[in-house]
Amino acid sequence: MQAIEDQLKEFPVQHTIEVQWGEMDAANHVNNVMYLRWAESARIHYFSKTMIGSDFQNGVGAILAWQDCKYIFPVRFPDTVLIGVKVNEILDDRLIMQTNLYSKTHRRIVAISKQQIMAYDYKNLKKVMIPDDWRNSILALESKNV
Amino acid sequence: MQAIEDQLKEFPVQHTIEVQWGEMDAANHVNNVMYLRWAESARIHYFSKTMIGSDFQNGVGAILAWQDCKYIFPVRFPDTVLIGVKVNEILDDRLIMQTNLYSKTHRRIVAISKQQIMAYDYKNLKKVMIPDDWRNSILALESKNV
Amino acid sequence: MQAIEDQLKEFPVQHTIEVQWGEMDAANHVNNVMYLRWAESARIHYFSKTMIGSDFQNGVGAILAWQDCKYIFPVRFPDTVLIGVKVNEILDDRLIMQTNLYSKTHRRIVAISKQQIMAYDYKNLKKVMIPDDWRNSILALESKNV
Amino acid sequence: MQAIEDQLKEFPVQHTIEVQWGEMDAANHVNNVMYLRWAESARIHYFSKTMIGSDFQNGVGAILAWQDCKYIFPVRFPDTVLIGVKVNEILDDRLIMQTNLYSKTHRRIVAISKQQIMAYDYKNLKKVMIPDDWRNSILALESKNV
Repeated sequence: MQAIEDQLKEFPVQHTIEVQWGEMDAANHVNNVMYLRWAESARIHYFSKTMIGSDFQNGVGAILAWQDCKYIFPVRFPDTVLIGVKVNEILDDRLIMQTNLYSKTHRRIVAISKQQIMAYDYKNLKKVMIPDDWRNSILALESKNV
Repeated sequence: MQAIEDQLKEFPVQHTIEVQWGEMDAANHVNNVMYLRWAESARIHYFSKTMIGSDFQNGVGAILAWQDCKYIFPVRFPDTVLIGVKVNEILDDRLIMQTNLYSKTHRRIVAISKQQIMAYDYKNLKKVMIPDDWRNSILALESKNV
Repeated sequence: MQAIEDQLKEFPVQHTIEVQWGEMDAANHVNNVMYLRWAESARIHYFSKTMIGSDFQNGVGAILAWQDCKYIFPVRFPDTVLIGVKVNEILDDRLIMQTNLYSKTHRRIVAISKQQIMAYDYKNLKKVMIPDDWRNSILALESKNV
Repeated sequence: MQAIEDQLKEFPVQHTIEVQWGEMDAANHVNNVMYLRWAESARIHYFSKTMIGSDFQNGVGAILAWQDCKYIFPVRFPDTVLIGVKVNEILDDRLIMQTNLYSKTHRRIVAISKQQIMAYDYKNLKKVMIPDDWRNSILALESKNV
């Protein structure tokens, strides 16, 4: 089995998050929604390294159409979560992204989350096709990684 | 198309949540993780009407193995979200649940979220088969609804 | 001692919130930050009944300069929190607001939170004096209550 | 004016947090409650370096009686928040703590939050005096810092 650092190398964008005590719930581990909050932070970092829009007021920006999360191992405070993000597929009208989350303390994967991201014209309030500059900048980022 | 009140009748457990201003994010609509927080609240209400354990310290309790969410319409403050929860399937080792979320203001569905729930022995720290009393109480609750 | 319904009558704006399970933390009661989230929701309702700006993009809007919270009794899920909001004082450059939070289940006060709210010109990015229309609309709302 | 690194030296416990995108609200900066979530995380780190109990189930643990927050400068994503925590005073029945928050990007203080922490016997459900081992371990930690 690969070390988590090796597993993270598959991902062109990596992000690190310190678990906060208040993110644990009454079951004494981090609440399920926090994994998706972390995935979102990592995803926005991915966006910032491409032309994917994160202007959510006037321009064409990313919008989340669907996501899932497979919970593999419960995270507790204190711990550091290492996150890898990649785009698995670029379709005409959406991106398929994958986010893997690892516990630094337990040195293992804790969750896998996938997202479908669409392009939304926040000015004209309608979905649009994935813009070419998004596609090209994703391909450039992902292949640097190959 | 059915009124949302009619659509909610499909669900044996219903739950209502007031949107909070601080649940909106910088994209000016409710952040994606909140839909799953709301689904969780509704799900715990469902548990409390059955024998599904929500003792997360010593007994056998529910644990979330997987979930997804399809985002259909953005929710904004102020609004009231009406939620229906049901169990779609009882497998040997997991329940398949479905949660539909409706906007009272817009009178439409806003999201559909599914969950896989397993039974976890919090004392002995291992997964167990779905207990009979969980199964029987779910069947009783769901059929009252038919 | 007055019933909580009588205590709430002091407040020109009242707001009700269902506690969510996921708002509890590992200490098994609602996390301290949630009381301030609830106070915020109630405060925004107050704003919407006056001319206090809640356009946080282009106009003159309220900005939180300071707040405190006295924690009196721990809230748990399930419960309903009843909230009263009032303006205690209108100074030249800030409003002093008070938010009382009550547990419907325990029929008692659970927290008292105060806020200092300033007027911020989000277009020109600077603080301004409390506008006259804010002052007049607050006085009208508060005196209806006397 | 001192560099933030010098200002942080006053504090025996320091903690670093990456701002998450989803912590921003519709006003386009980090929501006010998050500063208190961050302060809480830093405070728990402080506890872990002393004998202050953070067993919230059976033993004597810290409980938050009161807190305030002065908001000085709005934080946005992306940024890193540097936090310093200290105990200002040890009274018979409570600790007075202070938490300063700094923006790494803007190299300035963004908020100051104070807390009153009491000792709570989670088994017998009542407040107790500040235990001697809490007091001694705080004094040891704080004076190492002098």
